[in-house]
Amino acid sequence: MPFAFTDYDPYDFANRRHIGPSPAEMEEMLATIGVESLDALIDATVPQGIRQDAPLVFGAPLSEREVLWKLRRTAEKNKVLVSMIGLGHYGTVTPPCIQRNILENPAWYTAYTPYQPEISQGRLEALLNFQTMVSDLTGMDIANASLLDEPTAAAEAMALARRQSKSKAPAFFVDADCFPQTINVVKTRAEPLGIEIVVGDPFSDLDPSAVFGALFQYPGANGDVKDFTPLVEKLHEAKALAVVAADILALTLLKSPGEMGADVAVGSTQRFGVPMGGGGPHAAYMACSDAHKRAMPGRLVGVSVDARGNRAYRLALQTREQHIRREKATSNVCTAQALLAVMASMYAVFHGPMGLKAIAQRVHEKAVRMAQGLESLGFKVGPAAFFDTLCVETGPFQGVIMRAALAEGVNLRAVGSDRIAIALDEMVRPAEIEAVWRAFGGAMALEGPSPEPRLPAELLRETEYLTHPVFHMNRAEAEMTRYMRRLADRDLALDRAMIPLGSCTMKLNATAEMMPVTWPEFGGIHPFAPADQRLGYAEMVADLSEKLCAITGYDAVSMQPNSGAQGEFAGLMTIRRYHIARGEGHRDVCLIPTSAHGTNPATAQMVGYKVVPVKARANGDIDVDDFRAQAEKYEGRVAACMITYPSTHGVFEETVREVCAITHEAGGQVYLDGANLNAMVGIARPGDVGSDVSHMNLHKTFCIPHGGGGPGMGPIGVKAHLAEHLPGDPISGEGAVAGAEWGSASILPISWAYILMMGGEGLTQATKVAILNANYIAARLQSDYKILYAGKGGHVAHELILDTRPLADSAGVTVDDVAKRLIDCGFHAPTMSFPVAGCLMVEPTESEPKAELDRFCDAMLAIRAEAQAIEDGDLDREDNPLKGAPHTVEDLVGDWNRPYSREQACYPPGAFRVDKYWAPVNRVDNVFGDRNLVCTCPPMESYAEAAE
Amino acid sequence: MPFAFTDYDPYDFANRRHIGPSPAEMEEMLATIGVESLDALIDATVPQGIRQDAPLVFGAPLSEREVLWKLRRTAEKNKVLVSMIGLGHYGTVTPPCIQRNILENPAWYTAYTPYQPEISQGRLEALLNFQTMVSDLTGMDIANASLLDEPTAAAEAMALARRQSKSKAPAFFVDADCFPQTINVVKTRAEPLGIEIVVGDPFSDLDPSAVFGALFQYPGANGDVKDFTPLVEKLHEAKALAVVAADILALTLLKSPGEMGADVAVGSTQRFGVPMGGGGPHAAYMACSDAHKRAMPGRLVGVSVDARGNRAYRLALQTREQHIRREKATSNVCTAQALLAVMASMYAVFHGPMGLKAIAQRVHEKAVRMAQGLESLGFKVGPAAFFDTLCVETGPFQGVIMRAALAEGVNLRAVGSDRIAIALDEMVRPAEIEAVWRAFGGAMALEGPSPEPRLPAELLRETEYLTHPVFHMNRAEAEMTRYMRRLADRDLALDRAMIPLGSCTMKLNATAEMMPVTWPEFGGIHPFAPADQRLGYAEMVADLSEKLCAITGYDAVSMQPNSGAQGEFAGLMTIRRYHIARGEGHRDVCLIPTSAHGTNPATAQMVGYKVVPVKARANGDIDVDDFRAQAEKYEGRVAACMITYPSTHGVFEETVREVCAITHEAGGQVYLDGANLNAMVGIARPGDVGSDVSHMNLHKTFCIPHGGGGPGMGPIGVKAHLAEHLPGDPISGEGAVAGAEWGSASILPISWAYILMMGGEGLTQATKVAILNANYIAARLQSDYKILYAGKGGHVAHELILDTRPLADSAGVTVDDVAKRLIDCGFHAPTMSFPVAGCLMVEPTESEPKAELDRFCDAMLAIRAEAQAIEDGDLDREDNPLKGAPHTVEDLVGDWNRPYSREQACYPPGAFRVDKYWAPVNRVDNVFGDRNLVCTCPPMESYAEAAE
Repeated sequence: MPFAFTDYDPYDFANRRHIGPSPAEMEEMLATIGVESLDALIDATVPQGIRQDAPLVFGAPLSEREVLWKLRRTAEKNKVLVSMIGLGHYGTVTPPCIQRNILENPAWYTAYTPYQPEISQGRLEALLNFQTMVSDLTGMDIANASLLDEPTAAAEAMALARRQSKSKAPAFFVDADCFPQTINVVKTRAEPLGIEIVVGDPFSDLDPSAVFGALFQYPGANGDVKDFTPLVEKLHEAKALAVVAADILALTLLKSPGEMGADVAVGSTQRFGVPMGGGGPHAAYMACSDAHKRAMPGRLVGVSVDARGNRAYRLALQTREQHIRREKATSNVCTAQALLAVMASMYAVFHGPMGLKAIAQRVHEKAVRMAQGLESLGFKVGPAAFFDTLCVETGPFQGVIMRAALAEGVNLRAVGSDRIAIALDEMVRPAEIEAVWRAFGGAMALEGPSPEPRLPAELLRETEYLTHPVFHMNRAEAEMTRYMRRLADRDLALDRAMIPLGSCTMKLNATAEMMPVTWPEFGGIHPFAPADQRLGYAEMVADLSEKLCAITGYDAVSMQPNSGAQGEFAGLMTIRRYHIARGEGHRDVCLIPTSAHGTNPATAQMVGYKVVPVKARANGDIDVDDFRAQAEKYEGRVAACMITYPSTHGVFEETVREVCAITHEAGGQVYLDGANLNAMVGIARPGDVGSDVSHMNLHKTFCIPHGGGGPGMGPIGVKAHLAEHLPGDPISGEGAVAGAEWGSASILPISWAYILMMGGEGLTQATKVAILNANYIAARLQSDYKILYAGKGGHVAHELILDTRPLADSAGVTVDDVAKRLIDCGFHAPTMSFPVAGCLMVEPTESEPKAELDRFCDAMLAIRAEAQAIEDGDLDREDNPLKGAPHTVEDLVGDWNRPYSREQACYPPGAFRVDKYWAPVNRVDNVFGDRNLVCTCPPMESYAEAAE
Repeated sequence: MPFAFTDYDPYDFANRRHIGPSPAEMEEMLATIGVESLDALIDATVPQGIRQDAPLVFGAPLSEREVLWKLRRTAEKNKVLVSMIGLGHYGTVTPPCIQRNILENPAWYTAYTPYQPEISQGRLEALLNFQTMVSDLTGMDIANASLLDEPTAAAEAMALARRQSKSKAPAFFVDADCFPQTINVVKTRAEPLGIEIVVGDPFSDLDPSAVFGALFQYPGANGDVKDFTPLVEKLHEAKALAVVAADILALTLLKSPGEMGADVAVGSTQRFGVPMGGGGPHAAYMACSDAHKRAMPGRLVGVSVDARGNRAYRLALQTREQHIRREKATSNVCTAQALLAVMASMYAVFHGPMGLKAIAQRVHEKAVRMAQGLESLGFKVGPAAFFDTLCVETGPFQGVIMRAALAEGVNLRAVGSDRIAIALDEMVRPAEIEAVWRAFGGAMALEGPSPEPRLPAELLRETEYLTHPVFHMNRAEAEMTRYMRRLADRDLALDRAMIPLGSCTMKLNATAEMMPVTWPEFGGIHPFAPADQRLGYAEMVADLSEKLCAITGYDAVSMQPNSGAQGEFAGLMTIRRYHIARGEGHRDVCLIPTSAHGTNPATAQMVGYKVVPVKARANGDIDVDDFRAQAEKYEGRVAACMITYPSTHGVFEETVREVCAITHEAGGQVYLDGANLNAMVGIARPGDVGSDVSHMNLHKTFCIPHGGGGPGMGPIGVKAHLAEHLPGDPISGEGAVAGAEWGSASILPISWAYILMMGGEGLTQATKVAILNANYIAARLQSDYKILYAGKGGHVAHELILDTRPLADSAGVTVDDVAKRLIDCGFHAPTMSFPVAGCLMVEPTESEPKAELDRFCDAMLAIRAEAQAIEDGDLDREDNPLKGAPHTVEDLVGDWNRPYSREQACYPPGAFRVDKYWAPVNRVDNVFGDRNLVCTCPPMESYAEAAE
């Protein structure tokens, strides 16, 4: 046998590992579709007019090993010092068992948002724990399941106050002691809404009658711990609302915002075990009093029952959400920080109230020791009462001391020109306190008994918290590990099955991409550390930005927006600032097709734009005539249009250049929603077809996992003329949209690694295969389901809409029934009722191999056959496998009085036999839950009741 | 409320995380037992006479964070250079998805050996894949599920050859081209068995009539690739057996040992994705022709059927194993390298035959390019044909070039005084080949087309391998990840439930202990790298050894034995060498109580000792009178005794000092088996009560996880007088028992971290709580089960024996039925029929919290109640939940014609409801499997049949 070196490259990440179908499988699939080649399919699907001229070229793609090597070298350029900077970011110990079993576990990080509650009971319980923790510690009635960061949470609270306050006053007061990034973001969000922001000392500058609400920081940025109760009372007298931004750890020792009468509490849970990560991601919280619960933004987990009456969790009050309320929404928040909220809640479960209190006390003890040492050196240390942060008067020695501290490996924070703030946390070691003393000129050892505390006596917490048994479980790691495993096992994530969610792009989150996220060189960086300690991040951001520009055809990128919706807001604000700068600040109309994601109109209203809907044609495309008519109707007022490409119907519309041109002619700017960018990468560029701005969902197109509902990242790309209007730095600039320069910096390695391993050719191939996979499903299902909307060539883009509406008439089968039946088959349902009510939108992504696509098609065909059996009278119209879905082991073990068999119930085509996923609950009753709203862990007795 | 700093330490790893019961739970448990305090229980349980004088003092225990910091600093002292040393250890790329989802996943690493097949189907399938892979690549009929390392596998092959060969010749021939550590270990093993080892060139020095077998290395240590077929023929003519130690990767390109007619093939699978780890662990293999399968040592996975006739895997031919054969065994192997075998098998699944071949070709291509470059510099490079290793004649420049290579960051290997061997692997980068050229004085760039291969044309492989579909699955990471998840989910490991295995000590494997294992600074070290590159390892080994000495009362430790049984062998060999050195080499009797682990007699015979059993008294203790009588009977011949303490019956015998004294008086040495050392740490020291040697199961007492059947580590401690007789270095010394100086070095961080986090006090407390937990179970179950054996105070030690024999008579319920019924309750069964046939030995360990102990007790009491119901006639004697166990979902979904309900079948007390573990198969038929032995993946058609 002659020897020949093979061409096969086992380390070709793009074609062998990321892209699901093998070359041989692709051949079969193309034959099923009836096209000759992949390129022929693309040519028939993507209009020539929008194709990009030149291929993406990024040099040779890296193997997994080489990308990890490169990232290791990059990470080493970050310098991990001890940061005592504070301002909402603190050193914290991530318990190893939580790191490995949550943050590094695909069962948790690849899960989708828990919209399908039956397959999400594990993370819903963890998030309910989070809500209970926040609600308890803040002393508020109800808490949501996390927001993006503390600054945006504060801005959301302002918007809530504006909506809920009965005061007609135009201003919102912000405590000057708030974190600077909070003040910055609140100002950004206030400006387009016409809200005046008054920054000052609340005890001297606050005129309750002049404001509809006020925001206080507790403890203040420089350490002050003050009782806001009298101010809250005055605000309430003036019908204004009080918002307290509170440190979650401090609340274990201090009187809660709820006890002060606050209406809303916000803050960060970062220091509950989530690394600083150069700014994020971590979970912010919002809690409010009962009166405001229906106005609270963000996701809310509630308790309900399933079809058997057993307790089941699900998202509550979903009608509040932006995708339902659209332009009437007061917030565009979609993504939460689910994975990080889960981590923080597990940190609380791991430590319990006793442990959290002990941690807080140790932090305080360190702060007092730090103060005593500095005082013994002759420095004046304030404030009189503090929790973890103190402020030292340095006179002219500020700079010298700051540099000396740096030389000792410690970051302090300069305040003004003659003070230094020092924030302690659970990570600070005794030797590091001594190092700070040395920087201040003293050579003392930390020793002696515990000092007297310096917490304000009148603000010591006297109320209990975390009384629920979940926070009192045995704290052995064995027990903790098993609890996390049990929760994980209840859920269905990408590590078990395809999640064919249209628009949500649940593609592979490769392990090599995920590994760097938990390296300490990325995790241990304070977002406000000196720039020369963040060179690794800077280098990565620069290269990633350059590549994103090459992919999109834009000229500049801002990494600040930490979610897609945030990116939309940042993009429209950039457009808004552009118009204002040109003296066209009067432009206030935003044209949005009716098929748009609900976030689009919600975002438009947030920047003060009037939403003008544009009709769709029968085939789902934008009605260009109507578009032109609206642009003419609002002549001189058109600020922007927001379009999605390919469309939310999964079609590459031929008219996109025309729509952009009309907008430009009308003086507007084009916002091209990046939700479907994954169908364009390498074959078309938004910047080339006429768009001015897009956000890029790094958590969809560029492989950041969904984390069960976050984190996300939504950087925006803009054309050159908009670059100067991008969001400014959260500390030193203006117009910040998030709390950190690079948003959730610590997850950027994921997208960077993905791009580096794919290379330009691989990214392009991924786009093509995403289109192939969608068309393969279309080809296999078109005999049984009508495929709504297709392009000129009869092909869909990267996703397709299956019309399940006829089944409602013919068999009484709703789209919900189909979705729940898919759970029996071992699948997460496709997107339901978006963009077309009653239909399913399917997006397989490029990462799914043919066998998994076939398993899904088998399941969908079997469901159609079951509907047919109902139509034919072979199955009962009310009591059939579709209505009974999802079926649980509880169904099997009990009596069986159904007109179909257990076998038929549980093993429909598509379902694995031995390895079947079993939903832990039957179908969840959403209405019951919203009618009987419970959003904290129910008492144990009620568990017993439910079990009966 | 007055403020007071709390004493509660949330980072007290020992008492809050590792030790299961909380202080409050311990109070309740002591009350149930009826003792006043933990110390009172210990005083009543452990004889005063053996208690150690002084407490263990190791300084302040470290928190998880601090231990990781310390380990990071230690790891940094290892220098990861590019090692082209070869000799069975090669750079390899661990696919990230395998690292994260197998090696770093507690579902895999905390699993026990698959003795209970119903809860082990996942890892059994992975191990069957391993066997299939080895069998295919070696061309042999049957392969086992891994051995400890290549040298010991070669030694095992020698023992097999001796047993199976019909030749009466006394010698075993070893190819001089074998790895030096292989030759060393084979010599060690041969000496006590009276086997003469002849080392030489097989093509000139081998006299087939003078040997019962021969071992060849393929390719040879310095690169030669030769066809052994004619030698094998000659050996066979002389009725001798041929063993080939073959490189697993080379076999993808080269004619297999099977095709050469070899009887046995051995080797390492390290380079299939398992890091070098400073020497281990990684999985060695052994494969043989059908004729020898019943003589093959180690675990063997086979295919059988379950009670429904569905395919099920289980360990085959278990009667071969040492615990059954005892002193008639030819091997004492217990622990395999299951976790690493799983990794290697997944590497093969991930790459498939096409990928493996491509990797091998690339390695070869690099080797040829290396050779060409060196030739162009004027060096003579041999051999003419090679795979990955070449040998360069350097004349007097050897030292200069070696140093130059080091300066370039590359380790080469000096051969003799005038040659350098260079081994290529898949990790070597082009730049690193150029670096070697520079070291040889050339400044060339690696470029140009693929060179001509230099594999021997007559040895090119022409047969297929890895033809089974599992090696041809889609190679997308999505598919691969799901496959690993599906397998993991079939199994029950510590991450879901207590595994109360007597003697096996399934305690917590804390995440903080596990994390350093996958750091590249530990993984990337070649075991034969220069010492100054292994300083981190050396420092750890030194400190760990010192602490183990303090714990055991010994004076010196050898880290070489890489399993407990290996430790026994090393210990007895140390004794043997001691006697020989004193001129008492004639001593050949080893006294072993009948209750000993089967490994003890098996080991004794391996060192050439005659096993003399010593009777047990009715209470299970050693019969001291018989012991004395036997010692007297064999006066002058007593070499050693082997005792276990506390005894295998779970009792602290009062007589241990006396037994040791008798042995010493008889001139023998005491081997105290370390299996139960976890019941002594901090309260008694083997070295103090009279023992001379023990092995320490780091994988039991010191938290290395069981990995589904390995890795283990069994270092031995000895008294000072034995220190000089410890195993020598595998390369430079004599008497090596394993292939690397520190055995499986890369898992030592686990035990070290454990000891550092526990501190002396924590370790002592762990021992006490292990005893508490066992006595708590005894107290809860004693009403329903007789507890066999107890100490003077009526207490058990750290484990207890439940007498389930009466149920056989009264209800026809066997110990097997109880074990399988425990699966329904969500538990792995305790140890069955050891040390007392028909009974269960339960060891809860200190890591289990009270709730889990109670769940287990509830289950055991419910099982007793079911047996009672049979006795009372309320349950059928043949068709009842005990006989039907384990029940599967298949049982539920089908027709139900049993006289007990589905509910009763599936939800016995102890079982979780929502989170119940479901066994994937019904009870496995062991007899069927052994009668129809299939030890490779069955063809797909047979899967289809089984499904029907």
